[in-house]
Formats: sequence, structure tokens, C-alpha cells
Amino acid sequence: MVRLPRRIDETNVTEFLASFDNVLSDCDGVLWKTGKVIGCANDTINRLQSMGKKVLYVTNNSTLSREQYVDKCQKLGFQAKKEDIICSSYVLAQYLYHQQFNKTVYVIGEDGIGAELDHVGIKHTGIGADPAPTNEKILTVAETRELDADVGAVAIGLDGQFSFPKMIMATSYLLNSDILFLATNPDEMVPVNREDMTCPGAGALVSAVETASGRKATVVGKPSEILFSVIKRNHNLDPARTLMIGDRCNTDILFGKCCGLQTLQVLSGVTSYQNLQQYALGEKIEENNFLADYYLPELGGLLDLIDY
Amino acid sequence: MVRLPRRIDETNVTEFLASFDNVLSDCDGVLWKTGKVIGCANDTINRLQSMGKKVLYVTNNSTLSREQYVDKCQKLGFQAKKEDIICSSYVLAQYLYHQQFNKTVYVIGEDGIGAELDHVGIKHTGIGADPAPTNEKILTVAETRELDADVGAVAIGLDGQFSFPKMIMATSYLLNSDILFLATNPDEMVPVNREDMTCPGAGALVSAVETASGRKATVVGKPSEILFSVIKRNHNLDPARTLMIGDRCNTDILFGKCCGLQTLQVLSGVTSYQNLQQYALGEKIEENNFLADYYLPELGGLLDLIDY
Repeated sequence: MVRLPRRIDETNVTEFLASFDNVLSDCDGVLWKTGKVIGCANDTINRLQSMGKKVLYVTNNSTLSREQYVDKCQKLGFQAKKEDIICSSYVLAQYLYHQQFNKTVYVIGEDGIGAELDHVGIKHTGIGADPAPTNEKILTVAETRELDADVGAVAIGLDGQFSFPKMIMATSYLLNSDILFLATNPDEMVPVNREDMTCPGAGALVSAVETASGRKATVVGKPSEILFSVIKRNHNLDPARTLMIGDRCNTDILFGKCCGLQTLQVLSGVTSYQNLQQYALGEKIEENNFLADYYLPELGGLLDLIDY
Repeated sequence: MVRLPRRIDETNVTEFLASFDNVLSDCDGVLWKTGKVIGCANDTINRLQSMGKKVLYVTNNSTLSREQYVDKCQKLGFQAKKEDIICSSYVLAQYLYHQQFNKTVYVIGEDGIGAELDHVGIKHTGIGADPAPTNEKILTVAETRELDADVGAVAIGLDGQFSFPKMIMATSYLLNSDILFLATNPDEMVPVNREDMTCPGAGALVSAVETASGRKATVVGKPSEILFSVIKRNHNLDPARTLMIGDRCNTDILFGKCCGLQTLQVLSGVTSYQNLQQYALGEKIEENNFLADYYLPELGGLLDLIDY
């Protein structure tokens, strides 16, 4: 059995706070759910900043651009500059830009991806509702649509306008093995403010296209080290002095462990304490890397301990 | 290495024809692609019928009801009565009916499923376009929608109007572990009449909801034995004297092998001869059951051999 995360409490909070200079904080499920701050997460992050910790906001959510995240942070009471935002839409654009990608990307995703690709001058198509009439026969799209010969990559992120015609287009492009297949993130779901409802994540859309195409997407967001390489390009961080905070053990915590970071699990999002107990008992080696160094029910709990 | 299927030729066709009384024929990729007959598949099926073979049309495609398949068969030159049609929409309805299911089914699928559920008096909801406006924010649906308390099952088949709001609804219902999770079929794609395009199958939609929900669907269509149990309820067939014809090794042929039928692979749909060679060399035990007894490039080739 692997060791469960230690709860941060009065006995270890000083040691904990002294152990890092930088914070990479996930957003959905840690700082906020949809448009609502979780507890006093904003005051806690601001307090860490006033203690001299450098904070980056590291989110797999690709629906917004860095500029839009700065607005969201400010509206919800988090201090953030554009260079502090590492969202998977930005990572995707950086990844393609640094390999001199010069074709068009067929995107299943929202405006955040479009804005970040525009920022590095990469052409894209597909964002917004597919133009097929919703009452069209399924196979008509597959038998009548033209493919864009300039498409060199398919990229999938969260997309509220995901549809069957988009699946047909993505899967058809992927018949050509020269076309790259990228995913912003593998998250199965997005935390929402209701017990009886849930919202699928980009990982669900990726699964659909992976099944239809028989291909496996390259993930650029957490837990991929591609994201960490993008951070390192712009920020001089010592991994051993960097804390990753997350609510998902199979993206956030796995990412932190794989990149040699310290890790703090919060229970205000996807992963529950019961899940952690199951992983600790399990035998899959990968799951050992799902267990953080520390945990807290929610991030705001840290503020009380700092003030203790 | 496992034995590859034997090609039917002049030396073995008599033995082959004498070895079965009943034919279960897949449709898409064997008899037709979208609205076009493949070669002389219709004359071949009619010839087998005139030789006294009983023919059932066994399709995982759930978009039509049995009545609609009879119309399609007649239009394309295949003789078929309603009781000869075993489509996965019908199997789904029979499966629920015979377990006295008396709640509502949330359906991701088309009219074929609705018609078959209506036929056995089972209530359903969800068919057609989801009413959410296409420009609505993703999470608004998850935070504002009402769930129907009478829903007792989620069923997924091929659906040209598949959308993100439908994924939210299905995944939210599946949070309740008492709610059944059914799939008409696992087909990754549907064969189309173009080399450069493809069309995802119901299996791609099932993957999306399985990933988002963390649950595994019960498949009622091929390769599930549930489909064979529905056939046996209405038709007195000796499995050893029954031939399964299919284009997909991981549904049609696997189904035939698991139910003790003889099997004929045609190469006019999804599975290629190269795929068969890969399976023959592979080490996965399940893949042994992907290799049929016989193969032909297309079903119409049998007609020439009968007339030889």
C-alpha cells in the first residue's frame, strides 16, 4: 500500500510553506467552479503572493485565451497577469509554433484555441457550429463534404458545439496518417455546482474521435510534460521548489509527480478522498503517481492555517 | 499463428453451400453502402433464398425500425419480411421488454429506436435535436437543466444529432448507478462510398459517454449474445447449420464465433485482408475469434461460383 497524502494542519503548515517558492494552481475545481469562487480560494492565492510566492494559473480548460483568463481572474478576485496564465489553448499554440507548423489546424474547440492560434499566426478552421443543417442525414455529410487540403493537424478541446458532422470531419482528416492528432487535455469531466448533474470534459470528445479513427491523440495539457516545457521556456522555476495544486489526481497530481514538483490535492473538485483510498490500495503502478504529498478539503483551508 | 479464412472457390463451394440452412447477413458493408447495393449482393441473397436457405438481415445499425428496413430491402432488390429483420433498435426494445422495464429510456439515437420502443410500449425521451440553443455556454445546460425522474435507462445508438447537451444529459443520468446503460452496438465506423471520408459509428458516441461517466455500456447488438437470444426466441435455428456473413471481424465474425455459427468474411466494408493477416499474427486471444472460416472479396462473388 502506497502512502496517502498528509493533511496539512497546525503541526506541518510551517514546514509546508517553507518548502516552495512557486505555485502552479489548477483552476476549475480548485479556485472556482464555473463562475463561482470556491470558498476563500482567492484570498488564499493572494496571501501566498504577498508572502513572495510566484503563482501561475495552469488550467487544462481550453475554452478561453490567456487574455480572457486574466479578465476572469480579476473578476473573481485573483491577481493575474497574462504571462501568469498557462492554459491548454496557449500550450497547444506554442507546441505547434515551436515545431514550425505552417498548415491549417482543424479545431474541435472554442474561441480560446482560435485566439491563441491567431496569436502565433497559425491558420485554423472548424470553430463554431458546423454548418450542416441539423436535420441532414448522417451520411450525407460524409458523402458530399470537401476536405481542406491545407489541413495538417486535428486538435480537440472542450466544445459546447461538438456535433456529429464535426466528428465526421475530424475522423476523415485523420485517415491521413501525416495529419497530426492533438488534444488539449484528457479531463473526463468539468466540475459543476450541482450534485445531480455533471459536464463531460474534452477527454470525452477525444475518446469519441479516437474510437472512430483508431488513432491516439497527443495530449499537450496536464499530465503531459509538453505543458511543463512551455512553462520552463518563459519562467525560471526550480521544480523541487514548485508546488502543483490540483483537484484531479490523474491530470494535476500525475503531472506534478512526473515533472518532479511538490503536490497538493484539494477535494473540492473531481477527486474524492475515497478515490485516494482506492488508489492507495490499488496495484496499478501509474496510480502511485495519483497520490499527492499533501491534501486539504479545499484550498481556502490553508488561509486559516497560515493565520493560526 | 492462427489459420486465415479460406477463400471460397470452385474447389470448395459445393461443400460450403451444403454446410448451412440459415444465413444471418449483416447489411452495411456487405449488402449495401448507404443507399447503394454492393455489386450483385441482392441477386446473391435472392439466389440463396431460392435454394431454400432461410435469410435473416442482422444489422447493428439502429437508425431504422424493422418496417423501414423492409422498405429499404425492397427498394434495393432484397426479399425481406418484417420478421426477417433483426436490427439493433429492435433488439434493444426486446431486451428491455423481456425484463419488464417500465420506466423511461433517455435515448441518444434516431427514429428507429423510437419506433421499436413505441412498438413494445416503452416510454422514451431525447430523440431529435436537443433543445439547447447552439450558442449557449456549455455549463449553462449542466447547471440549469431538469432531469426526468422517470428515466431508468440511457441507450445510445448512431445519432446524426449527437451534441454536447445530449452528452451532458446522458452522463448526468448515469451518475445514478441504478440507471441502466445500454448501447445498440460498438461499431467504430460506418462504411461510406468514398475513399477520403469516413463516418463514425455508434461506438464512437458510446466511448464519449463511457469516458465522461466512468461506466461501461452493455451492448445488445453484435457481438453480444443478447442479439442471438432475441433471434432464437422467434426463429428455430440450429447454430451449427447457420452461416453469419459480415464485413467487420470484431462485431460480425466475433459474434458468429461466440454463438457457434459458421462464418463468412467479406472485404467490401470495414475489415481488410491486411487486417486479417495482422490478427492471424497477433497474440490477443480474442483476435483468434476475429478470423472467419471463409472469405470473399465481396458477396456477389458467390453468385459466379454457384453458377460455375
